[in-house]
Amino acid sequence: MSWTLARRAERLNPSIIREILKVTERPGIISLAGGLPAAEGFPIEALREASDRVLTDAPREAMQYAASEGFGPLREWVAAEMATQGLHVPAGQVLITAGSQQGLDLCAKVLVDAGSTVAVESPTYLGALQAFAPYEPDFLPVACDDQGPLPQGLAAVRGARFLYVLPNFQNPSGRSIGEARRVALVEAAAKAGLPMLEDNPYGDLWYDAPPPAPLAARDPDNVVYLGSFSKVLVPGLRLGYVIAPPALFPKLLQAKQAADLHTPGYSQRMVHEVVRTGFLQQHLPAVRARYKGQRDAMRVALERHLQPLGCRWTVPAGGMFFWVELPAALDALALLPQAVDAGVAYVPGSAFFCADAQANTLRLSFVTVSPERIAQGIEALAGMLQRALQGEPVPAASA
Amino acid sequence: MSWTLARRAERLNPSIIREILKVTERPGIISLAGGLPAAEGFPIEALREASDRVLTDAPREAMQYAASEGFGPLREWVAAEMATQGLHVPAGQVLITAGSQQGLDLCAKVLVDAGSTVAVESPTYLGALQAFAPYEPDFLPVACDDQGPLPQGLAAVRGARFLYVLPNFQNPSGRSIGEARRVALVEAAAKAGLPMLEDNPYGDLWYDAPPPAPLAARDPDNVVYLGSFSKVLVPGLRLGYVIAPPALFPKLLQAKQAADLHTPGYSQRMVHEVVRTGFLQQHLPAVRARYKGQRDAMRVALERHLQPLGCRWTVPAGGMFFWVELPAALDALALLPQAVDAGVAYVPGSAFFCADAQANTLRLSFVTVSPERIAQGIEALAGMLQRALQGEPVPAASA
Repeated sequence: MSWTLARRAERLNPSIIREILKVTERPGIISLAGGLPAAEGFPIEALREASDRVLTDAPREAMQYAASEGFGPLREWVAAEMATQGLHVPAGQVLITAGSQQGLDLCAKVLVDAGSTVAVESPTYLGALQAFAPYEPDFLPVACDDQGPLPQGLAAVRGARFLYVLPNFQNPSGRSIGEARRVALVEAAAKAGLPMLEDNPYGDLWYDAPPPAPLAARDPDNVVYLGSFSKVLVPGLRLGYVIAPPALFPKLLQAKQAADLHTPGYSQRMVHEVVRTGFLQQHLPAVRARYKGQRDAMRVALERHLQPLGCRWTVPAGGMFFWVELPAALDALALLPQAVDAGVAYVPGSAFFCADAQANTLRLSFVTVSPERIAQGIEALAGMLQRALQGEPVPAASA
Repeated sequence: MSWTLARRAERLNPSIIREILKVTERPGIISLAGGLPAAEGFPIEALREASDRVLTDAPREAMQYAASEGFGPLREWVAAEMATQGLHVPAGQVLITAGSQQGLDLCAKVLVDAGSTVAVESPTYLGALQAFAPYEPDFLPVACDDQGPLPQGLAAVRGARFLYVLPNFQNPSGRSIGEARRVALVEAAAKAGLPMLEDNPYGDLWYDAPPPAPLAARDPDNVVYLGSFSKVLVPGLRLGYVIAPPALFPKLLQAKQAADLHTPGYSQRMVHEVVRTGFLQQHLPAVRARYKGQRDAMRVALERHLQPLGCRWTVPAGGMFFWVELPAALDALALLPQAVDAGVAYVPGSAFFCADAQANTLRLSFVTVSPERIAQGIEALAGMLQRALQGEPVPAASA
């Protein structure tokens, strides 16, 4: 065998969640484990019309090699959209990427050396850990409460290449950073000389009130902002964007060019056709209404079935996930096979920690399952947890 | 400024070619500098029908998150197609990527440490140097002749993580590796314990006879094969594939997942719809006929105008490029502004060398320019070269 792997290949590993999802795809399982948006809500007709228009108006341009920066009008749209949220940047600072996952990869490529410290929330988004890990950082969790990072915790991660933050309806915890905390966090970060990566895939999925202005709007030179069309339109086109300060933009652009030359012009033009006339303003309320109903169904089911068992959670004001803390004695990873046997699946919370994992946590998604099935799933989960708490023998695994 | 760049960011630089292309986009310039395929030949109608079918038959699956490995039926098609070329691998060894550029990036991510040696042809494809460079290798050119790497040159690059080879109608040189050389090269690589990356974007663009079986077919455990739909269908969808031995496949897959989760299912399904019924067998002869006519026009023009000046080239048996060696005294990079003033553009050959650049070389693309314009462009180039050879004063740059 003549191949020698790079040292960083040791930091590449199969996604724990994807491995779990394989197990939970057995028929009949109510899966609350997924991180997918609900496909029933995809605006297929609008996408079809957009595709027709692109293939009529500019088919050859759409199918030819294109600029690494992205499709100009889509970059302009993103800049205009961000301005409505308080982040004022020229379109020249918008880089279109293959989903925000690629934005995370490019940021780490440009910013992380082997042995660099990268500060993260605890828990944090697993996909970000996976994107950063091949660049061999040391992950350092920052102190958090139920609003995310504590401003007074930033001094302890001074010197990190950046702090990665997901401020709205975080994956996995569902928590959000409020207005006052944002002000304090941005100030503390500037004081500590700590730049931030702000990842905002879920910001438009609010069910009660829109979230406060992004961190990047408060200190655009110290914060890179990552956005995505995955949760507001469709994930399968793999379209996201990075908004970077002028000090970083050229290097991110060169990294993008080296990685895949450019994001497909066809899909960028399609999405631009869909969004340019204000489609999201009609579409998003429907998505929010659907997901809010499912969130409420899960809240009710949790109150009914898991509250009596001593479980705790915070109701997420948006996004896709509840984060549940089980009684301290229970280990969510160890219990997963029993949950699957009981007909319900979740993601054990330990997957989302880079250190000091809380074994008694789990993540539940409410967006791809009907309210009725959510109720059934939570009831089944409660039954399994009750048996575990009572120390009952584990039922034999079904064949 | 709180951002600290990774050391590798020093190895990220603007593409010289893209900078040149900006200059040559002035109206009236006959650009022989591009590396784009001809958009007139894009099968727009077939793509439109394929899009319709995907959006009718499986719209939600196409727009949802999907497997990092790629769309199963497309992987099967690639495996079957490669079998006709002598490379027999299961579809499980096919990874769908965002163009073969991403294949190059992922291979380097998994195989290259800072300070690793990467052996390359001389000259070699600039995009590959750009993909590999951020992983901080030392590039080592392998001895080449007009058929590519010399088998006896491989011992000198022993210990390299891999040798990067583009065996068919190489970008930039247009040269190809013949059957006997392939046999000797694979044998010498195995003997030297030197794995190879075989990049084959142009193999289907043959104008005289199909190329010999790929290197990977001769030693599949020692060669990673990179293929692309960019030149046979369209580049703008960014679809390529990596065929990797079982020893490497899982790490490449994990690197793909970390980089962008997966390639869009929609475009994979579209391309699968186009190719599954044998469309390429009807489409490729038309592309070949078009490009062959343009190649022949350039050959005739070069013979007529550049031969008398002492320039040399080998007629490429396929692909998109002529590689021209000017008289030794001339520097193609220094002369480019004069060429542009004379109304014609090329890419200076020095961009394609990682060391010991030959300043008197240039690359000419024949695929996006009509035979008439090719003749005009080469005549203008000859005029400029003649003036340079005669030491005439440089004409003032046009305003």
